[in-house]
Amino acid sequence: MPVQTWTEAAPRLIDVATGRKAADTVVRGGKWVNVYSGEIIPRTDIAIAAGRIAYVGPDASHAVGPETKIIEAKGRYMVPGLCDAHMHVESGMVTVTEFARAVIPHGTTSMFIDPHEIANVLGLKGVKVMHDDAARLPINVQVQIPSCVPSAPGLENAGADLSVEDVMEALNWPQVCGLGEMMNFPGVAMNDPKMLGEIGATQEARKTVGGHYASPDLGLMFHGYVAGGPADDHEGTRKEDPIARVRQGMRAMLRLGSAWYDVAEQIKAVTEDGMDPRNFILCTDDSHSGTLVRDGHMNRVVRHAIAQGLKPITAIQMATLNTAQHFGMERDIGSIAPGRRADIILTSDLALLPVELVIAQGEIVAEDGVLSADIPEADYPAFCRNTVKLGRALSADDFDIFAPEGAQQVRARVIGVIENQAPTRALEMSLPVRNGLVQMDADKDVCQIALVERHRGTGGVVNGFVSGFGYDKPCAVASTVAHDSHHMIVVGTSKLDMAAAANHLGKIGGGITVFSEGQELATVELPIAGLMSDERAEVVAGKAAAMIEAMEACGCILNNAYMQHSLLALVVIPEIRISDLGIIDVTTFKKVDLLV
Amino acid sequence: MPVQTWTEAAPRLIDVATGRKAADTVVRGGKWVNVYSGEIIPRTDIAIAAGRIAYVGPDASHAVGPETKIIEAKGRYMVPGLCDAHMHVESGMVTVTEFARAVIPHGTTSMFIDPHEIANVLGLKGVKVMHDDAARLPINVQVQIPSCVPSAPGLENAGADLSVEDVMEALNWPQVCGLGEMMNFPGVAMNDPKMLGEIGATQEARKTVGGHYASPDLGLMFHGYVAGGPADDHEGTRKEDPIARVRQGMRAMLRLGSAWYDVAEQIKAVTEDGMDPRNFILCTDDSHSGTLVRDGHMNRVVRHAIAQGLKPITAIQMATLNTAQHFGMERDIGSIAPGRRADIILTSDLALLPVELVIAQGEIVAEDGVLSADIPEADYPAFCRNTVKLGRALSADDFDIFAPEGAQQVRARVIGVIENQAPTRALEMSLPVRNGLVQMDADKDVCQIALVERHRGTGGVVNGFVSGFGYDKPCAVASTVAHDSHHMIVVGTSKLDMAAAANHLGKIGGGITVFSEGQELATVELPIAGLMSDERAEVVAGKAAAMIEAMEACGCILNNAYMQHSLLALVVIPEIRISDLGIIDVTTFKKVDLLV
Repeated sequence: MPVQTWTEAAPRLIDVATGRKAADTVVRGGKWVNVYSGEIIPRTDIAIAAGRIAYVGPDASHAVGPETKIIEAKGRYMVPGLCDAHMHVESGMVTVTEFARAVIPHGTTSMFIDPHEIANVLGLKGVKVMHDDAARLPINVQVQIPSCVPSAPGLENAGADLSVEDVMEALNWPQVCGLGEMMNFPGVAMNDPKMLGEIGATQEARKTVGGHYASPDLGLMFHGYVAGGPADDHEGTRKEDPIARVRQGMRAMLRLGSAWYDVAEQIKAVTEDGMDPRNFILCTDDSHSGTLVRDGHMNRVVRHAIAQGLKPITAIQMATLNTAQHFGMERDIGSIAPGRRADIILTSDLALLPVELVIAQGEIVAEDGVLSADIPEADYPAFCRNTVKLGRALSADDFDIFAPEGAQQVRARVIGVIENQAPTRALEMSLPVRNGLVQMDADKDVCQIALVERHRGTGGVVNGFVSGFGYDKPCAVASTVAHDSHHMIVVGTSKLDMAAAANHLGKIGGGITVFSEGQELATVELPIAGLMSDERAEVVAGKAAAMIEAMEACGCILNNAYMQHSLLALVVIPEIRISDLGIIDVTTFKKVDLLV
Repeated sequence: MPVQTWTEAAPRLIDVATGRKAADTVVRGGKWVNVYSGEIIPRTDIAIAAGRIAYVGPDASHAVGPETKIIEAKGRYMVPGLCDAHMHVESGMVTVTEFARAVIPHGTTSMFIDPHEIANVLGLKGVKVMHDDAARLPINVQVQIPSCVPSAPGLENAGADLSVEDVMEALNWPQVCGLGEMMNFPGVAMNDPKMLGEIGATQEARKTVGGHYASPDLGLMFHGYVAGGPADDHEGTRKEDPIARVRQGMRAMLRLGSAWYDVAEQIKAVTEDGMDPRNFILCTDDSHSGTLVRDGHMNRVVRHAIAQGLKPITAIQMATLNTAQHFGMERDIGSIAPGRRADIILTSDLALLPVELVIAQGEIVAEDGVLSADIPEADYPAFCRNTVKLGRALSADDFDIFAPEGAQQVRARVIGVIENQAPTRALEMSLPVRNGLVQMDADKDVCQIALVERHRGTGGVVNGFVSGFGYDKPCAVASTVAHDSHHMIVVGTSKLDMAAAANHLGKIGGGITVFSEGQELATVELPIAGLMSDERAEVVAGKAAAMIEAMEACGCILNNAYMQHSLLALVVIPEIRISDLGIIDVTTFKKVDLLV
């Protein structure tokens, strides 16, 4: 929903500020949480016109006319609307619209989204769909153009590629604030011309280059990466990580996602070491719908940061002004000051941050946790649907793994899942052979995994073994959320169920499904690019919970098992993964044979 | 001198950072003054390539090759080159080149200049000359496009006008960082379409709108001004001024110029009230050549700020990172971090800040206060010279002030100079009449002032009276520096000397001259636009000192008398001034009669 620019609104704002015209809305008598000065200023009024702040000061009565709407702050804190500096909407498995609907009641009024997942399925036109969905919302949603599509060229085929030219084109779209996380950090440190081309195009456009340096190595590769131009990083986990990044002139983004808990340790750089907090920013990166529905969004992150010992005003700066400055949008968002969008939260407790009223672009959009904005349904175009192209119906024998002629037993590579960690372990195990086929081994918790090609309908299936889920019933779990190429990952103890689950997702256009003995136990339908539902976040959260229960009913004892499942094709994180090209050793970045 | 952009330099920077190629220069073993983290980090090396920083860290030996130049920091502090956030080169009465030559040894490596004075004489093409001079220097000189030319439309004719279209054109020039100080604050608060047009064009170009709110009124006019869009202000003087500005989302620029002492009082907002210092910036605004030669430039300001109780790192942030962020140039200047221009000062004392070595864009440009950079002479085009167009030779009777027929005595308005203050007092005094002409009155310290039109050769002379200089000999002082329209102001006790002084300036193309009894006592030649010399700052400083001595020899007892002289046509500061249109009451903004 386009709000007037400051330039467009200026004559009106000046007239309201000086009392020549009446404000649309006046928020009366609150405590001004001033992120510029670091002060809390009591007894402050805010006058709003054209969706922007015209006046902030001790008395806005000169701006009150007969039509002016009055909101009584009643001494509550008036906090700038919260900004999520880096996040993927797709992690919530909902559309941008539904994500916004879910987070607005939590006080989020700005999101910087990297539609990396849809880019891997639908390319630039998928990114544009998310961009256009973002542009119509009553909050500020900025788009970072995905920088690494596919994530691992040569090791996988994604649904689409983004080129430097694509990035250059997208940098002109109105909601685009920069380049999405540059996760090919070895490429940058090795002068990869495509990576440098994207970074250069973004710098020349005076937009922000997002970083992603997912390595504990703070030696020369890190220095090479910094010299390449990324301006922030959210992959730090240890206290030394933000210290290194901020010293080098990057912004440290500290994330608290559904499964990322990276604030507590890193914030010690400020609370213990006394680093200047201005270059620290809070973000979520990945939030599941369940987290949004149950726990909150950026309010959860700010609250958590305060609980780590940060002053409330400092934590709030990290989710407002610091973010806005980083993206060059300080004159538009991130503070309660004249000219900025009127994005304001009312709360009665600055540490616990209950979000009692949310104003976005001058309108009340949520009260007491309930959305009040009228947000029209998103209407994603047809090409976003039916993206699961299997080419043919799969059958159990598609998952046959043949042993060498005459072998009774084989040594096979097995992907070893590590609980609560993203890396996998490259295992080798002896597996029995029956009727010429290598068998799973329930006693050793080894079942099958298959990567089913789903973008081009090639009918391709890559088979392998995985250990760690604990399935002890005949079952299969299939998902078209399969980072980052988003083919289909099927894990199962029963080839019949694997085929049934895969075919079901092919029929419904994608999602996650659990089958056991031919029965569908649970399904989360994700018809948009096989990644997102078009239902409400609470509906998706409910289905996701049922899906996890079904996995548990099949014997899965792993924490965050579904997430582990969806990451098994992520051929950029060691040690071993599966892609549409085969089994990939992610220490050597080479394809390897399944059987040793 | 164009340094490569980060984008252009990136492949080289990465190779140097990772040790695949050798640096041009390595600064070894210094204390890293880290303006991002607020730390001082000992034992740090800096590797430089292509004029930019490739690596900063504990050991750059991997970047040292046989051709690498080594600079031993020997444990000294490595401070980012200093930035002057708002200043007028013309105040030094030298060219941009000569200004740079004077300030580089003081550690200034970035200047944000507003060529407001030459704009009033030569218009956009004069601004372009300064811009082009700036662009060829070995330091970073950014240009703010003057916003108010003329300063007081309707009350004066300057040598040129700048239109909104001129501003829009200039916003595309490579060195242009934004709009110069928007000093028509009543205009902004009253929705003046030209002022809003300039501000809007600058905002749309994502550049910075400079402010100038020269009023103690922090009421509705102030709020109206803020709502109009200026992003900073350097006109505060009291502690409450920066508090008000920063709270409203503006940056407070605290100035220490040759005659402005506005840091000590305002910095208390930080040192006493604990405001977040990140939105405070230091600048000089106006520095005379003498100050540059004797006392320093931004190093003087930083040192002074520290002496007021500010932590050295905080004061340095106010002259480096804070400034860079304000102008959206943080990725280019303002810190010692990879990718940025290698602008570095070595100093052995962080509080007193002796500037022992200056590196700009990777090259040593000054050592121990002596310029070592090879800066070619500036060659200003011919149209910048011979700009003093009198149309005819003046004679003593041009300064005759006629009394009404038969009057023996008249009541006349007299401009009352107030020592050490910019405002004047609107006096009325009785003056004798002789031979039909109103006479000066030495006993009352009343002499004559004339505004001589010098841009269009109209031959126009506006006469009036002034009190406060103390001249007690037959003499005249003439100056073509006459803010802001820069006609010629002649003050004298002798009409013969007034004519001689004026004619002399006409002959030499402008400057400041002191005549007594037909003799030229002293002259500062300013052949460029009548505002600037093309000589070295130390030469100009010497001539200026001689000129002030000559004024004193004529009996002038006023502190900063020459500055008072040059401000008497500044028809935006109350209470009474002179312009080419007549005597102006600057409380009502109306022309008034000289005789009451």
